[in-house]
Amino acid sequence: MPADSLTAAGPLSGHVYAVGVGPGAPDLITVRAANIIRHSDVLICPRSSKSFQSMALEIIRPWLKKQMILDASYPMRRDEEATEAFWREIAERAREYTKQGMSVTQITLGDPLIYSTSCYFLLQMQKLLPGHKIHVVPGIAAFQAASARLKNALAVQEDRMLLMPGTDADQVRQSLACCETLVLYKAGRNINLIRSVLEEEDLLDQSSLICYAEQKNEFVCRDLTEYDGHLPGYLASIIVHVRRRRWSGD
Amino acid sequence: MPADSLTAAGPLSGHVYAVGVGPGAPDLITVRAANIIRHSDVLICPRSSKSFQSMALEIIRPWLKKQMILDASYPMRRDEEATEAFWREIAERAREYTKQGMSVTQITLGDPLIYSTSCYFLLQMQKLLPGHKIHVVPGIAAFQAASARLKNALAVQEDRMLLMPGTDADQVRQSLACCETLVLYKAGRNINLIRSVLEEEDLLDQSSLICYAEQKNEFVCRDLTEYDGHLPGYLASIIVHVRRRRWSGD
Repeated sequence: MPADSLTAAGPLSGHVYAVGVGPGAPDLITVRAANIIRHSDVLICPRSSKSFQSMALEIIRPWLKKQMILDASYPMRRDEEATEAFWREIAERAREYTKQGMSVTQITLGDPLIYSTSCYFLLQMQKLLPGHKIHVVPGIAAFQAASARLKNALAVQEDRMLLMPGTDADQVRQSLACCETLVLYKAGRNINLIRSVLEEEDLLDQSSLICYAEQKNEFVCRDLTEYDGHLPGYLASIIVHVRRRRWSGD
Repeated sequence: MPADSLTAAGPLSGHVYAVGVGPGAPDLITVRAANIIRHSDVLICPRSSKSFQSMALEIIRPWLKKQMILDASYPMRRDEEATEAFWREIAERAREYTKQGMSVTQITLGDPLIYSTSCYFLLQMQKLLPGHKIHVVPGIAAFQAASARLKNALAVQEDRMLLMPGTDADQVRQSLACCETLVLYKAGRNINLIRSVLEEEDLLDQSSLICYAEQKNEFVCRDLTEYDGHLPGYLASIIVHVRRRRWSGD
């Protein structure tokens, strides 16, 4: 059964939702996401322990009424075990709420299944609740918002699009051979190394840097040959148009 | 300036929009897309010359008022020149409308920049109008709707996700080495060849087949070892969870 028939009237009692709220602008949320958020009994709002407020919570402010808000301040560490333990505890609390007949929604920036806290939450939730009580509502991911700013196709015809973190310059170099469009997330920390790779491969003028697309401090540099070294944020995306792969004929 | 401030009050007079309407369910459209569609003077609705009606138009039916509808029945052929000529003509008509002060919106299934007719439309439009009069509104792509049904992460931590058409079994085999998650679009025509590749690589039980996610005739086969050979449609997606690439430590 398509989810729209399930959710048109809002979330179901005792069910859990992982909902993507999009990249930042409140109107880039889907109608379904807004609907579920508006009518949920409990909202789980992840927030990095390093930040003062949940960006996702800011996005959904127009849809807040009297939902109970569970502020999930998680450890911003590359530690598998600590991450798992944190989300297991959140999932256990979510299950307690569902036992009382409440609907529980975890909100997340972007899309819940693309580099998101929801991936961890869902993994733990699936150990505690039957599958039919767990739902995922997709959201606009940051790379979609970034490319919409550039107005250039991510993929047409036979193109391959590869999405990966821009954390390792060598792996970036290798990946250029595997795709027509390369999208690098979290490119802020290694921006200079990545730039060197793109310069060596003669791809600087086919590369763009975008930070905070659809947020207040949005920054767009369409052509990395013109990039002045100013990095507005760690969560920068780089989109590289490596080549094109046209139709090979029928 | 973030687009929300531009578009909160609807589309601007004399401007052109390429708007993604999502995978099929009317409530998986974004608030911004619905807003722009509702207040546009002209809607361009692409439709394959092989189909009776525009699927995108069905999705936005709740938002139709008195917009002028331009039915863009395009040639479903792998012919670069014919495709270009077709969209040049549509773009020229769009420019004529903008000269009269109208707002023009081309709607498309999924996301406008991911294997979409909008890619061709935008390319032609950019030759006729200044950039600041052209806007792109992202939409939920089919692969996001498909993975939301499966409730499995597409990418976490250091994972790479590769999206490509599943039209060539050899290229599918090669791509398995380049990513942790492989998403194949249009996998219907070569489903048996692709299955053979996945079987050889011992990946059948890590592969799912999804057709028409969020549409009436949705079909989900979570595990290709259990696939009975029945193919509900040509526009099938296959999602292969090849491996995981965990944090390598800080």
